[in-house]
Amino acid sequence: MGLLIVGSVALDTIETPYDKIDNALGGSTTYISVASSYFTDPVDIIGVVGDDFDEAHIKMLKRHNIGMDGLQIIKGGKTFRWGGRYHENFNVRDTLFTDLNVFETFDPKIPENLRNAEYVVLGNIHPALQMNVLDQMNDPEFIVCDTMNLWIDISKNELLEVIKRVDILIINDSEAQMLSGEPNIIKAAKMIQDMGPEYLIIKKGEHGALLFGDDNIFSAPAFPMFNVFDPTGAGDTFAGGFAGYLHKKKDLSFESMKQAVIYGSTLASFCVEKFSTKGIEDLPKEKIYERFTAFRDLSRFEDGQL
Amino acid sequence: MGLLIVGSVALDTIETPYDKIDNALGGSTTYISVASSYFTDPVDIIGVVGDDFDEAHIKMLKRHNIGMDGLQIIKGGKTFRWGGRYHENFNVRDTLFTDLNVFETFDPKIPENLRNAEYVVLGNIHPALQMNVLDQMNDPEFIVCDTMNLWIDISKNELLEVIKRVDILIINDSEAQMLSGEPNIIKAAKMIQDMGPEYLIIKKGEHGALLFGDDNIFSAPAFPMFNVFDPTGAGDTFAGGFAGYLHKKKDLSFESMKQAVIYGSTLASFCVEKFSTKGIEDLPKEKIYERFTAFRDLSRFEDGQL
Repeated sequence: MGLLIVGSVALDTIETPYDKIDNALGGSTTYISVASSYFTDPVDIIGVVGDDFDEAHIKMLKRHNIGMDGLQIIKGGKTFRWGGRYHENFNVRDTLFTDLNVFETFDPKIPENLRNAEYVVLGNIHPALQMNVLDQMNDPEFIVCDTMNLWIDISKNELLEVIKRVDILIINDSEAQMLSGEPNIIKAAKMIQDMGPEYLIIKKGEHGALLFGDDNIFSAPAFPMFNVFDPTGAGDTFAGGFAGYLHKKKDLSFESMKQAVIYGSTLASFCVEKFSTKGIEDLPKEKIYERFTAFRDLSRFEDGQL
Repeated sequence: MGLLIVGSVALDTIETPYDKIDNALGGSTTYISVASSYFTDPVDIIGVVGDDFDEAHIKMLKRHNIGMDGLQIIKGGKTFRWGGRYHENFNVRDTLFTDLNVFETFDPKIPENLRNAEYVVLGNIHPALQMNVLDQMNDPEFIVCDTMNLWIDISKNELLEVIKRVDILIINDSEAQMLSGEPNIIKAAKMIQDMGPEYLIIKKGEHGALLFGDDNIFSAPAFPMFNVFDPTGAGDTFAGGFAGYLHKKKDLSFESMKQAVIYGSTLASFCVEKFSTKGIEDLPKEKIYERFTAFRDLSRFEDGQL
């Protein structure tokens, strides 16, 4: 059985220093599923939308072979909407509005045939929903969990219960500091691993990412970006590329996870080049592999004897 | 001929969240020369101290085989003193005092026999002094230049004149943004290379460093530090390890520079483990090479076919 993804499906209104888009496809489930679809199958999503959700989005997801038995379409309901504005250099983002709509009463129901999924990706949603999903699963082999500062802030205890049960947590550096209360990232990582997850990824945006596990650390570079167009969904895309590659490889060694981190970074680097999911909708496999090798060239150096 | 280093020799008073030290050996020349001495020789320094400069410091430098024909010792003069205080997590540093003393009237005189040095490292001092040194040299093969925000702020034009003449500039990310006026680091790097230096290193502290040159980019990881004890001199030490390794290799290829960046990072990681120059005074070569290979393990990943 395959890879099951739960999270939000949304319509985003995004303002960047360069451009603006209304009601573009967004949501953690969306980015994760599209990114993972380049690597493996079956990929299935659990989510909810209203009947205002554009058929074109459904078609795009189907084109990526994404199973939608777990996508609830609420008659007369409105899809979750989020609006955000990025400042110069994308270092700061303001949330302009959050209209939960059908997401407010979302009660994830995992269809019977998907409860045996081998890998589960818990996208960035309320930890109570993440826990609800885990409770319905039949002992998945590998559980990936994403979260954000909001949940550390308002639902820390519920989040800690989820974290205990996952194999790998993916967060950014400021979230790692917030969750652990420790400013030193390396110490913070050890403290978070002690909370449950055997593996941990700390994303550092333009500075790359760190993978912790097996008493080992891997430092992944960031792809040098001349132009970031829209960073929305880059973190979700990273998680999707990571989980998709691992699921395809069926190898949970640290070496395999390193490569998965690079494939996650690769997909994320394509994501930020265009608005919404546009950057990851039509990627030839050769282009993905070419960028993977560019990451290798970027960080590789030969032995230098003294 | 060898490696010639010019910069400051100082006595530092340093306060960290953990400890305090008075009148400890410091200065850019000091750190650069000790770091480079592990890789190559002859290494010579140009600098100035007062006759209050402790004989023990001279002995330590001599023990590292550092030539001091260019070190002026001013009778009755007092050595340059600097005091700084680091805040929690070392992200912020306040300068407590700067007593230039004999450094105020420093007029670098390069002894005749040192004017043929193949490599010159211009440590972080006023660009007018850096230019003065360059004017005395007989066409060195490779010129490394370090600087800081202060000079970009108060002596930008003089700094730009120096930069035109150097082969590689080493600065940190905020200085690169300040010098170029461009927030995107990758764009900033191209702009700075257009100012003159064929190569550029942008240091990012706990996020590693980027090397630019030959239409190529190398991303070096940072060594994961559980404890930083005193970051003073880490940048100078980086420059010293970098230049020393390159001078030893006598190979200015991009591949060789990558390794030099890692050796610079290696020495810097030892530097921050102790106060003052203590962390780099007694390093067995095996320990240096061992950490170099740890950097490789940290960033290396195998090919992952799709």
